[in-house]
Amino acid sequence: MIGSMATSKRVERDGAGHPAPAAPEKRLFTPGPITTSRTVKQAMLRDFGSRDPEFLAVVREVRERLLGLYGLSTEHGWEAIPLQGSGTYAVEAALSSIVPRAGQVLFLVNGAYGERMVKMAEAHGIPSTVLRWSEDTPVDPAAVDTALAKDRGLTHVALVHVETTSGVLNPLLAVGELVRRHGRTFFVDAMSSFGALPIEFEAGGVDVLAASANKCLEGIPGLSFVLLRRAVLEKSTKTARTLSLDLHAQWRGLEENGQFRFTPPTHVVLALRQALLEHEQEGGVAGRGRRYRENHERMRSGMERLGFRAYVPKEHSSPIIGTFLYPEHPRFDFAAFYRGLSERGLLIYPGKLTKAACFRLGNIGQIFPADVDALLAAVPEVLAEMGVELSSPRRPKG
Amino acid sequence: MIGSMATSKRVERDGAGHPAPAAPEKRLFTPGPITTSRTVKQAMLRDFGSRDPEFLAVVREVRERLLGLYGLSTEHGWEAIPLQGSGTYAVEAALSSIVPRAGQVLFLVNGAYGERMVKMAEAHGIPSTVLRWSEDTPVDPAAVDTALAKDRGLTHVALVHVETTSGVLNPLLAVGELVRRHGRTFFVDAMSSFGALPIEFEAGGVDVLAASANKCLEGIPGLSFVLLRRAVLEKSTKTARTLSLDLHAQWRGLEENGQFRFTPPTHVVLALRQALLEHEQEGGVAGRGRRYRENHERMRSGMERLGFRAYVPKEHSSPIIGTFLYPEHPRFDFAAFYRGLSERGLLIYPGKLTKAACFRLGNIGQIFPADVDALLAAVPEVLAEMGVELSSPRRPKG
Repeated sequence: MIGSMATSKRVERDGAGHPAPAAPEKRLFTPGPITTSRTVKQAMLRDFGSRDPEFLAVVREVRERLLGLYGLSTEHGWEAIPLQGSGTYAVEAALSSIVPRAGQVLFLVNGAYGERMVKMAEAHGIPSTVLRWSEDTPVDPAAVDTALAKDRGLTHVALVHVETTSGVLNPLLAVGELVRRHGRTFFVDAMSSFGALPIEFEAGGVDVLAASANKCLEGIPGLSFVLLRRAVLEKSTKTARTLSLDLHAQWRGLEENGQFRFTPPTHVVLALRQALLEHEQEGGVAGRGRRYRENHERMRSGMERLGFRAYVPKEHSSPIIGTFLYPEHPRFDFAAFYRGLSERGLLIYPGKLTKAACFRLGNIGQIFPADVDALLAAVPEVLAEMGVELSSPRRPKG
Repeated sequence: MIGSMATSKRVERDGAGHPAPAAPEKRLFTPGPITTSRTVKQAMLRDFGSRDPEFLAVVREVRERLLGLYGLSTEHGWEAIPLQGSGTYAVEAALSSIVPRAGQVLFLVNGAYGERMVKMAEAHGIPSTVLRWSEDTPVDPAAVDTALAKDRGLTHVALVHVETTSGVLNPLLAVGELVRRHGRTFFVDAMSSFGALPIEFEAGGVDVLAASANKCLEGIPGLSFVLLRRAVLEKSTKTARTLSLDLHAQWRGLEENGQFRFTPPTHVVLALRQALLEHEQEGGVAGRGRRYRENHERMRSGMERLGFRAYVPKEHSSPIIGTFLYPEHPRFDFAAFYRGLSERGLLIYPGKLTKAACFRLGNIGQIFPADVDALLAAVPEVLAEMGVELSSPRRPKG
């Protein structure tokens, strides 16, 4: 059923109930919000009381499933704390709730999401040290080792697993092993990897991890979460620097009566439960990752065949999102390119690199190889409309 | 159409797609999340790209409509800033973004939501003075006058318009006039009034107001917003104490490219647009308020007829939610009472008073006089099951 959705036109009525003629649903080649299944969206067609035992059972199930995806459990000292808001809120909740007043964070940065964490630390007056790499280059564990050996004051290390800025995959395991050897606390922003890539929680010494419902889990935006070791959480009773993003208070609330402290996005929680069921049906992290990898490889090789250049070297690229440089052609215009694809029901994503003009193509969500093929077929059409001809490096375009 | 929904059984399929038999949808007599219309929920059956011009047009429309509900506009110096997360996030965003480092807030407190603001100030190290009233008593403007006259250091005054703790309605206009006369900045938590009660933005000197999508606007939880004077906002470029809840940065992002800074809850935004259309169709603030008042009066008089005692005197009660004391009967058990009504598809709300055992009945959302009658018919049934007989003060029960 899922497979057939990919090839159908999926022309649907405008759900907003407007009198205007129904617009066809677009396929989102974006890093989130992503295309979700119809059943995930349909799970939201119900109003639940936020304190009703029925809803609380759903919250409990979601928390358990989030841990279970990676073989974690409360029995083994882990907690899953859902939080209202986007993934950024979960990252800020983690950093501002876990790092004590005497703490100091080593930020490993090779993109906009790493920089965002640095800004959070600044907002909260958390002392930090920043190591930076170019946006196409993974974090280098050796530099982390040196920094931790040199500065005993660094209590926490923060890493973005997959930098959505470029799609570069950072070496979580190698970095985490070092962080653990040095006895520091390891925080991972796993926004774009959780649910689709292996995450070595134990071997990689992950202590605290933040992610979101609407990336690889293919849920609806509006809910994020933090997974962390209870031992870390229990040390954070008075560390929080805000009320809304106080992770320990959020956890205490959930433990005491199963409820969110503040109105939860009930519909989005129901959608995440459904998304987690469908994630399981697809074969869990391995199954989901397999499809994304297939999408990604097809996309990357297809785009290269069309004459585009990928920004991140293949060996450092995650299967989540690909960054492609603007072709060096005087008539290439990103706005027109975007519009041409959008008119064909294919939504791509602008770039975010600081140094290179680029666009991004997401490989996640309810996107299947047939969708990738549809995009690869539309790109040359749109290029032709703009009068852009790219020299295809080796093979003929057809 | 809306009216007919109220009387039908509304037995629907479990949207979560579970194999279990479909559960009937419950009617929510709660202060939010509330029962929303089917069309509002259906507006979420669509995945939108968060940077797509089509979605940005919806965001623009929502922002304009939020201001327009009370005759405000950007032309007259007002801004509407939507924010991911629950209403509490919007309150914290406002307080932590608007009050400068040298500022000091006078909190007017007669319930849990007032106390919550005080906790926010504590979390951010914002100096404050607190005036407190009993939970069944409105804030007294005279005391505010005295406090402001005495302490010139108080730069801001914060009031909860309708205290959802009890349902008490605070005198926004009288307090606001004083705040303005004293030349201070007036912040209002209008969570439970925005969209259904008059709010004297100009006459009451409101400068900053926070509210949420899923109360009287009858949208879906997961989105809140702040309305404020641009002059106040423009003074807040470097005031924010967080990244995620930085109101000025959120506004700047929206102004620069129409986008949320971080992933917006696209589906919830679509639902709010639809909810605002339906709000207009019902006759705007006046029309919505009329229905809620009718619900409330029917509920209050009906419950009193059944032998219950309302906690808040009639003259101080808002039409949003009613608080009823537990009957003084040895066999009354709230859990059983809740369960009995829940089994009949009627969901009520626990109490939150510090000093009295009570429960609450919300009058907002897609709840109509016929629904109130259904609840009033079910209550004596459930009481009888528990073996509780209440002495009805005047009239016979039937």
